[in-house]
Amino acid sequence: MISKNKIKTIRQLEMKKFRRREGCFVAEGPKVVGDLIRYGFRPCQIFSTTQEWADAQLVTEDELRKLSFLQHPQQVLAVFPLPVHDDVVPTPSSLCLALDGIQDPGNLGTIIRLADWFGIDTIYCSEDTADAWSPKVVQATMGSIARVKVVYTNLVAMLRSTTLPVYGTLLDGTDIYHEELSEDGIIVMGNEGNGISQEVRELVTRRLLIPSFRQGDTAESLNVAIATAITCSEFRRRQTM
Amino acid sequence: MISKNKIKTIRQLEMKKFRRREGCFVAEGPKVVGDLIRYGFRPCQIFSTTQEWADAQLVTEDELRKLSFLQHPQQVLAVFPLPVHDDVVPTPSSLCLALDGIQDPGNLGTIIRLADWFGIDTIYCSEDTADAWSPKVVQATMGSIARVKVVYTNLVAMLRSTTLPVYGTLLDGTDIYHEELSEDGIIVMGNEGNGISQEVRELVTRRLLIPSFRQGDTAESLNVAIATAITCSEFRRRQTM
Repeated sequence: MISKNKIKTIRQLEMKKFRRREGCFVAEGPKVVGDLIRYGFRPCQIFSTTQEWADAQLVTEDELRKLSFLQHPQQVLAVFPLPVHDDVVPTPSSLCLALDGIQDPGNLGTIIRLADWFGIDTIYCSEDTADAWSPKVVQATMGSIARVKVVYTNLVAMLRSTTLPVYGTLLDGTDIYHEELSEDGIIVMGNEGNGISQEVRELVTRRLLIPSFRQGDTAESLNVAIATAITCSEFRRRQTM
Repeated sequence: MISKNKIKTIRQLEMKKFRRREGCFVAEGPKVVGDLIRYGFRPCQIFSTTQEWADAQLVTEDELRKLSFLQHPQQVLAVFPLPVHDDVVPTPSSLCLALDGIQDPGNLGTIIRLADWFGIDTIYCSEDTADAWSPKVVQATMGSIARVKVVYTNLVAMLRSTTLPVYGTLLDGTDIYHEELSEDGIIVMGNEGNGISQEVRELVTRRLLIPSFRQGDTAESLNVAIATAITCSEFRRRQTM
C-alpha cells in the first residue's frame, strides 16, 4: 500500500521547485532506472510491480499508474538524489557541449542522448535552459543521463574563463564540412527560436555554418537537436580520418 | 461569425479518417501557411485575425482559438486540399528518403524539415508511417512540407522495382564515414522501436552504421530523426568534396 501522501510527494517532483527542495528526481522503466543504478546512482526509493528490483517496494499496476508520469508505466519507478557537481570547468583536450537557453524538454533529452553516442561527457547548460531532471527529459534521454554529466552554470563566465576554442553555428559562419575542427573545444548551441544569445555569441571564437543543399528558397533553420547531431558527427568523423 | 458546424468540421481534420474523407488538411501560422501558398498550394478556406491574407475570412482571437490546434494560435489558419501524387517512383540520379513505419509525428515533421534543408525532394513512406498531413506534423515541418513531396506507397514493391542503391543504417553495417556513398540512392530509415522491418531489410543493398564514439557501454541507439540527419549530412558532404 502506498499512502496518498507519498503519491503526492512523488508526483510533485514533476516541478523543478520541488525537485530542488527535495534534492531528488524520478526515473522510470527498466532501461532508464537500470542504467542509472549501473552507473552509480543509488535510488532513495524504488517501486516495482515485479520482484526483480533490489530493495523495491512491491506495488500493483494500479499503484504504479498513480505514481507514474508515463502514459504507459513500465514496471519500475525510482527516486534518485540529484547529482551534485562541484564547480566543474571544461577539461583541456575534451570536446563538450554548451546549451544556451534550450527550452524544449524533448530537444534537451535528445541532445543528452546523442552526446552519449558521440562520447561527449559533459554538457554545460545556461541557467535558463530547461531542467534536465524533469521526468520528460530523463525519459527522453533513454538512460544516457546516467552517463553524461549535465552542469548548470553561468555560461558567459565559463566561456570567458576557458582557453578552449568555442564553436558556434551561426548564419555568418564558415562551412563546417570544410573548416578545420580541433579535437577539443566547446560547441555552443542556442535557443530554439532565437539561437545563441548576444552575450554568448560574442564569446564564440570559431563560427560555423551547416550549409543547406536546397537550391533557392529553403528551410530557414534546422531543429536544434538536429544541428547538434550534425555538428558532433562532423567533429568526431574528423578524428577517425 | 463562424458557425459551430464549421468549427466542428475543421477540428475533425485532426483525424486522418476525416482528412481522407474531406480531402484536405489544416496549416497554421504565417510561416507555414505562407510557405504553402508560395509553393502553389491554394487554400480552400482561410481564417485570419488580420487583414493581410487574401480572401481570408476575418475572425476574432476567440474564434481562431476555437479553430486552432495550437496552444498559442498564430494569426492565420488555412485548409488546403491534400496533394495528389500520381504513382511516383524514384528518379535516377536523385537522393531520396524512405520511411518504414515511423510513428512519432514530431520525428516525422523533423525529418521532413531536414530533408528540405538537405535538398531531398521526395520522401516515400510505408502505409503504416504516421500521416504527414496531421496538424502536428504539418506544424513540426515549419513550412518544409510545402517543398518536400511526401508519398505514401507500398515500400516493398517500390524498393523491389528500383535500380537505385538502397541504403539502410543497420547494426551490422559498415562505418558510414568510411564507406563509399553514391550521389543518388534511397536512404531507408526504420521504426523508432524496431528499426527497419524484416521485409524491407532484405531489400537494403548497402548496409551502413553510424559508429558510436563512447568507449565501453553506450547509448543503444540514436533517435531516428537524428540518425536521418547524420546520414543525409554525410551523403551531401561527399558531394562537396
